[in-house]
Amino acid sequence: MPDQEHIQDYLDFAIGLTAEAGRIALHYFRQPIQVSNKASGALFDPVTAADKEIEAYIRSRIGERYPQHSIIGEEGEDRIGADSLSWFIDPIDGTRGFVAGSPMWGTLIGLVDGEKCLVGLMHQPFVGETYIGSAAGAWLINAQGRRRIQTSEKDRLSDAVLACTHLSMFAQGERDAFARVADACRFSRFGTDCYGYALLAHGLVDIVVEAGLAAYDIVAMIPIVEAAGGIITDWQGGPAHQGGRIVAAANSALHEQALSELA
Amino acid sequence: MPDQEHIQDYLDFAIGLTAEAGRIALHYFRQPIQVSNKASGALFDPVTAADKEIEAYIRSRIGERYPQHSIIGEEGEDRIGADSLSWFIDPIDGTRGFVAGSPMWGTLIGLVDGEKCLVGLMHQPFVGETYIGSAAGAWLINAQGRRRIQTSEKDRLSDAVLACTHLSMFAQGERDAFARVADACRFSRFGTDCYGYALLAHGLVDIVVEAGLAAYDIVAMIPIVEAAGGIITDWQGGPAHQGGRIVAAANSALHEQALSELA
Repeated sequence: MPDQEHIQDYLDFAIGLTAEAGRIALHYFRQPIQVSNKASGALFDPVTAADKEIEAYIRSRIGERYPQHSIIGEEGEDRIGADSLSWFIDPIDGTRGFVAGSPMWGTLIGLVDGEKCLVGLMHQPFVGETYIGSAAGAWLINAQGRRRIQTSEKDRLSDAVLACTHLSMFAQGERDAFARVADACRFSRFGTDCYGYALLAHGLVDIVVEAGLAAYDIVAMIPIVEAAGGIITDWQGGPAHQGGRIVAAANSALHEQALSELA
Repeated sequence: MPDQEHIQDYLDFAIGLTAEAGRIALHYFRQPIQVSNKASGALFDPVTAADKEIEAYIRSRIGERYPQHSIIGEEGEDRIGADSLSWFIDPIDGTRGFVAGSPMWGTLIGLVDGEKCLVGLMHQPFVGETYIGSAAGAWLINAQGRRRIQTSEKDRLSDAVLACTHLSMFAQGERDAFARVADACRFSRFGTDCYGYALLAHGLVDIVVEAGLAAYDIVAMIPIVEAAGGIITDWQGGPAHQGGRIVAAANSALHEQALSELA
């Protein structure tokens, strides 16, 4: 396990990647997809272009700085390094939101040592926010500066705000389990992607329940949620870092109630 | 019907209200609701406070400037003026999004002459955007300036992006009709409120299907959608200005296909 000084270096390095990653994302954001020209059939897909260009940039920078680390990303093949540390990249988490012009998407960078998520970063360049998490706490960086964030203290599902990206992420049995949690909550809000976990860390959303996630969809959000005081696991209470079915809660009281509804 | 010069005055007046309305909204935005103190039972609800304060401000300014006009708002009682012009105000459209910390909400101001929506404005102060519409076109005003917006030219539902606030807005039969449209579209995105109509005017969302809307939820969005090239009606193709079941489409081809699925 790297010491805190090294972890801070990794976090600072990841923050340093956001300026260029955000510039690339905003270059493509809200550029309407061209309707396919019947002669050529070519379809310009800005989210795919943004995804590829951002991931290539981040992979290149990690490769230069930490050639011994592994890299796992949404685009491109896994690179297995000599070291136990692995970077997980989702260049645009929330591609449907990106296509629809919503601000609810972000670039995710996470660093894992074995099963432990050491560093997580979510960057939303349109709104101008970066959420970071590590053993040194959870922070929101924006134009006003940097401030610590923490999850809410609400301890009853009936007071809780639930976030989820879309019902289509659930298989039928999963959807019933989700509905039990949703019915127990104050209200639900969809269309959130990574931003739902960020808002949970920020104390505004209280529960996120999702399924069908890849590791690179969630790894970066784990240290942010945990350092803000939240709990994030799979639906059985096991580790979340491999993705799949995920439940994040603002505190242990809400987490227990949500697990009980999901069981 | 006022002439174009007067309409421009009304629009400029409405734009002039957004600075203070936005300041009030951001004062309350992302201030977590205090969990009720068991001793007092008092629950601080920032969205209610923001709603009331913004609407009171806008009512007061309209009352000073246009005492002969009617005012219909979400909070407070209707004020019936001597003139045929009526202002519709939704101080925070998307209160659940506001509570959850999402940027997908806005302040709506619309001006109606009888059944004709003359001027519409949607202001999203967190993102820093104001969408306006009138006979002089649909425009987005942000930190980069002011630019014309227009709806997309996609003409098949199978290419279309559908936006909707939440399935809970539909009664059972309505939900089936919505599902037919959603199943025919490329994908759907929820959690949008007024921002869905703004993104449609912007050419990023292609269809919005909703139900259970109040007049003040939709009046302001009508001139924005129409001036951008879109079509907005009820589910039978009739006028949208009274709210209820609403379908907005980027163009007549998509509108016809959506009406057919909704029938």
